Amino acid sequence: MAIPRARLVSVIGAGNASGPPWQWAHVVGRLLALQGYGVVCGGLGGVMEAAAMGCAQAGGLSVGILPGSDPDQANPWCRVVIPSGLGQARNVLVVQTGLGVIAISGGGGTLSEIGHALKLGRPVVGLGTWELPGVPEAAGPEEAVELLLDRLHP
Amino acid sequence: MAIPRARLVSVIGAGNASGPPWQWAHVVGRLLALQGYGVVCGGLGGVMEAAAMGCAQAGGLSVGILPGSDPDQANPWCRVVIPSGLGQARNVLVVQTGLGVIAISGGGGTLSEIGHALKLGRPVVGLGTWELPGVPEAAGPEEAVELLLDRLHP
Amino acid sequence: MAIPRARLVSVIGAGNASGPPWQWAHVVGRLLALQGYGVVCGGLGGVMEAAAMGCAQAGGLSVGILPGSDPDQANPWCRVVIPSGLGQARNVLVVQTGLGVIAISGGGGTLSEIGHALKLGRPVVGLGTWELPGVPEAAGPEEAVELLLDRLHP
Amino acid sequence: MAIPRARLVSVIGAGNASGPPWQWAHVVGRLLALQGYGVVCGGLGGVMEAAAMGCAQAGGLSVGILPGSDPDQANPWCRVVIPSGLGQARNVLVVQTGLGVIAISGGGGTLSEIGHALKLGRPVVGLGTWELPGVPEAAGPEEAVELLLDRLHP
Repeated sequence: MAIPRARLVSVIGAGNASGPPWQWAHVVGRLLALQGYGVVCGGLGGVMEAAAMGCAQAGGLSVGILPGSDPDQANPWCRVVIPSGLGQARNVLVVQTGLGVIAISGGGGTLSEIGHALKLGRPVVGLGTWELPGVPEAAGPEEAVELLLDRLHP
Repeated sequence: MAIPRARLVSVIGAGNASGPPWQWAHVVGRLLALQGYGVVCGGLGGVMEAAAMGCAQAGGLSVGILPGSDPDQANPWCRVVIPSGLGQARNVLVVQTGLGVIAISGGGGTLSEIGHALKLGRPVVGLGTWELPGVPEAAGPEEAVELLLDRLHP
Repeated sequence: MAIPRARLVSVIGAGNASGPPWQWAHVVGRLLALQGYGVVCGGLGGVMEAAAMGCAQAGGLSVGILPGSDPDQANPWCRVVIPSGLGQARNVLVVQTGLGVIAISGGGGTLSEIGHALKLGRPVVGLGTWELPGVPEAAGPEEAVELLLDRLHP
Repeated sequence: MAIPRARLVSVIGAGNASGPPWQWAHVVGRLLALQGYGVVCGGLGGVMEAAAMGCAQAGGLSVGILPGSDPDQANPWCRVVIPSGLGQARNVLVVQTGLGVIAISGGGGTLSEIGHALKLGRPVVGLGTWELPGVPEAAGPEEAVELLLDRLHP
């Protein structure tokens, strides 16, 4: 009678992240998968790729929603690719598809996603990203996942 | 080294289908899953639900891209739900996410999706749907799947 | 006490139209402007440009909703340009922004717009375009405008 | 030979604004119109309505891009209404349609628009809104318009 629906968390952040933010995103993706969650991201590189990789390597479901219409632009760790062709408007979909959001580093695009999440009432946790009211800052990837799951299951 | 990407086929059609079109969609979903494909649909009822059900029951991956922003509007057979909030604009995403399209019955929304598919160069096969140049008509669900897979792997 | 809202008609069709369809679109744009309507189109060439030109030359308001994000891609006859960045999803907006639709020639993109119009309940009149139930065919641009305005003001 | 294209400025902010932010938006809309600019906004109430009103009352062109598909939801001061039906994804269009952005008060939706503007490279000036790097804060509506126009014509 019906099938279990994937529970996804949005992981957002800089498309050109490297170093610590990349590592954080990879750990976040892995921890989410180990807790039974999948990851939805923007499908490109940096934080998006690291989170999808960490998730997929730990057996979780990874979904990438691309701004462009070419599925080959997706990183190789997204099991499901939505080539939206919507440009930056796809940011809303990334946020709306997740139960909550973990934001890691990032620029204007990430800021737009945090804004959409606040508007939509999705819980958001930050990790080295924009400092904003309503966005608690985690000390590391483990705490980020913990804080977010606490907010999903209060 | 990377993970296998889901190969999805778009199944589109009337949201209030019953009787033969519903049965056709269910068989199409099952056959696609048995051939290693998943189904992407509009996430609602009728043809969308039947195709997702047939796919999921046969072990395939089912994706629903909803027009609204409430994930609870999705039928219970979609493993991945994208609550797009885009209204009818989500039709483009349903078509763009699949490698090809099987159209079963349907009204204006289905017609818009066939148009988008023709514009995007996605192969389309029809089953009791709009008769249009460029859309070969199948005699039944088995032939619809066969015709579409032939066009995907010429 | 408020301002008069522009009454717009969607004119859709082939982006590479020339010859008669181009002329028809130009006349349609002009006649609409002379009757107090503006034109909303996809902002590019062919039918879109001809309709915007005819409208603007007759003093009407012309609106172009582009698929891309670069406003410079718009034809020079659109007074208001919406660079949507949405790709083909912008087709819904073109149809939804008008009170009704006149379709002139066209391929898959135009077909998608006719489908969206039927789904949304917008009246559609065709002129050398897809022959479809629910889409009356006009014998020329004058009749197309007449048929559409009749359907807007029954 | 072609027609002058409307030069639009995006005015964004709280849909329930009253008091000073409402007054600021009204002055901003008026000053923009007096300088030859039109206003594009989200088409609803609060800052959106005040800016459209100020603009229209001073003879400027006002454009509203609604989240919903019902044009009657627009405030009465928008001359051109785009009922997008895109939900929050319409925020990108509001920002993308303007040459630059003036943000007045506002919550998550406004934050998403500022983020989109920063990503798209549109200049943004703030007035009693989110304090963010890259968003200079004006002391009042006159300075907001002046700062923005300076950034548009350096």
